[in-house]
Amino acid sequence: MRVLSGIQPTGRFHWGNYFGAIRQYIDLQNEEASYYFIANLHALTTVRDKEQLWQNTMDAALDLLALGLDPNQANLFVQSDVPEVSELCWVLMTGTSMGLLERCHAYKDKVSRGLSAGAGLFTYPVLMAADILAYDANIVPVGSDQVQHIEVTRDLAQSFNHQYGEVFVLPQAKMLDTSAKVVGTDGEKMSKSYDNTIEIFEPAKQMRKKIMRIVTDSRPMEAPKDPATDHLFQLFQLFAGDEAKAEMAAMYRKGGFGYGTVKKALADAADEYFGEVRAKREELAAQPEKVREILGDGAAAARQQAGAVLRRAQEACGLKRA
Amino acid sequence: MRVLSGIQPTGRFHWGNYFGAIRQYIDLQNEEASYYFIANLHALTTVRDKEQLWQNTMDAALDLLALGLDPNQANLFVQSDVPEVSELCWVLMTGTSMGLLERCHAYKDKVSRGLSAGAGLFTYPVLMAADILAYDANIVPVGSDQVQHIEVTRDLAQSFNHQYGEVFVLPQAKMLDTSAKVVGTDGEKMSKSYDNTIEIFEPAKQMRKKIMRIVTDSRPMEAPKDPATDHLFQLFQLFAGDEAKAEMAAMYRKGGFGYGTVKKALADAADEYFGEVRAKREELAAQPEKVREILGDGAAAARQQAGAVLRRAQEACGLKRA
Repeated sequence: MRVLSGIQPTGRFHWGNYFGAIRQYIDLQNEEASYYFIANLHALTTVRDKEQLWQNTMDAALDLLALGLDPNQANLFVQSDVPEVSELCWVLMTGTSMGLLERCHAYKDKVSRGLSAGAGLFTYPVLMAADILAYDANIVPVGSDQVQHIEVTRDLAQSFNHQYGEVFVLPQAKMLDTSAKVVGTDGEKMSKSYDNTIEIFEPAKQMRKKIMRIVTDSRPMEAPKDPATDHLFQLFQLFAGDEAKAEMAAMYRKGGFGYGTVKKALADAADEYFGEVRAKREELAAQPEKVREILGDGAAAARQQAGAVLRRAQEACGLKRA
Repeated sequence: MRVLSGIQPTGRFHWGNYFGAIRQYIDLQNEEASYYFIANLHALTTVRDKEQLWQNTMDAALDLLALGLDPNQANLFVQSDVPEVSELCWVLMTGTSMGLLERCHAYKDKVSRGLSAGAGLFTYPVLMAADILAYDANIVPVGSDQVQHIEVTRDLAQSFNHQYGEVFVLPQAKMLDTSAKVVGTDGEKMSKSYDNTIEIFEPAKQMRKKIMRIVTDSRPMEAPKDPATDHLFQLFQLFAGDEAKAEMAAMYRKGGFGYGTVKKALADAADEYFGEVRAKREELAAQPEKVREILGDGAAAARQQAGAVLRRAQEACGLKRA
């Protein structure tokens, strides 16, 4: 299997990103081939501040490496370091019907949420198709909001193959496991748009502060409580081992505890869980040369693969000749 | 002045193309810098046959060189040999509003004429902007149908410069001189869509045949005629020297001649006019290595220029860092 994951550098990653996506992406790095790119060309549709885009991009690289992405297993690179993807994007664009793009929900949703109607957002699925097809990826892990874009990619690949011969590998969407509920500080789904996030690499003190402010209900302390329906417990179980989980669940069922106790346990567990990656991130941040080298090697490997696919496509449609 | 001209390889060039555009493009080759590209990425929106696109592209190169494009003066290259243009295209795309593209007449016209509504046609002005801005071109000779696209280019450049600092040079449209009336074999404007064209590199015999079939009116031979309003005379004066023109005009005003005489004179004049370039084209066609070298050198020079501009843009918006 050849796996591709793109991560948009639109800000710092939070617990929801981690348990809902990033951890699952990284778990796939031992497949036959795996490509992880930081999607700065996509982010450019919304991040229009030079320093912020650059910082987000470098942060994303540090975060992913600290979280366990192993450059000896996977190719990690920055999207704009692979010109072949932009070239392939235009080739695919010429075979894309307006109807196909007009039917994409993500564009309509974004515009209805107030993002300005830009050609970059509108044609985003074509660049995404180029990203995927350039690496002959057959597995693309995605959330439910991206499934339609994988369908677009398959449509574009099939129609090109139909017209010009077998050039592109058809990818499959691999749905991310969304069973882990990651609630934010207000008890709702953790999401940047709700401003209720706790970042993975939040300084320990600040993380603890945020945790202590998580909203709770006003049931009396002595009342027994169902752990399965409590959002503090849901967060706790993301970090705790089986034994600690069972103990905490028993305490819930028995009653006679304050939420402060749970919050403290949660903060300790999260601290321990992210302690090592936090240290690793600091270590990496002190070695910018090394990170640059990793990204450079990743881009070189990516370009080799993308270059071969692009050449196949260019020769197939008459832009180049062998 | 830095001049840019793109020529779509959508078929063989005819007299209308030559007198209405190509000759005027070539006249600009002695400016400080001049870039001529064969727009195969644009043509891909309509030419979906591999062999045809490739053949058209090579034919366009031979035609332009035979017609006087001097590779020692100008850079001649194939659009898809400059990856930087596709990269710049996406960067510009992220700053393009849908409204700007929706207001473009050329797209609406093409769709209303039956071309399928494709994202390539729709976003065509963005690729064209990338073509122009990549070479810091300040003069772009265009027909009236392309003036709006130069406006789009200026809009995109200005808005990028406004957001990120002075990166792009604002181009000016240079209107082509359309005073030379080139009528087709049916007496209407010569155009591929009317199927009334005479190709520049038509074999001499076939060209003569087409000329002899040009429609004429049924006024009596002996009647004096006004040369200024006669389409055969209009064609003749494109090729004839001043003396021959004056003689022919006098014959018209006097009357007493058959249109066959004019057609024969036209065929002789066209033959002579294109005789040398026809021979030169044959000579070049026999040296594919040389043509490939010219295109290779042109692309290398173009990439150097486009690479510098792309880098400026990438650093300005935070995709890369110095």
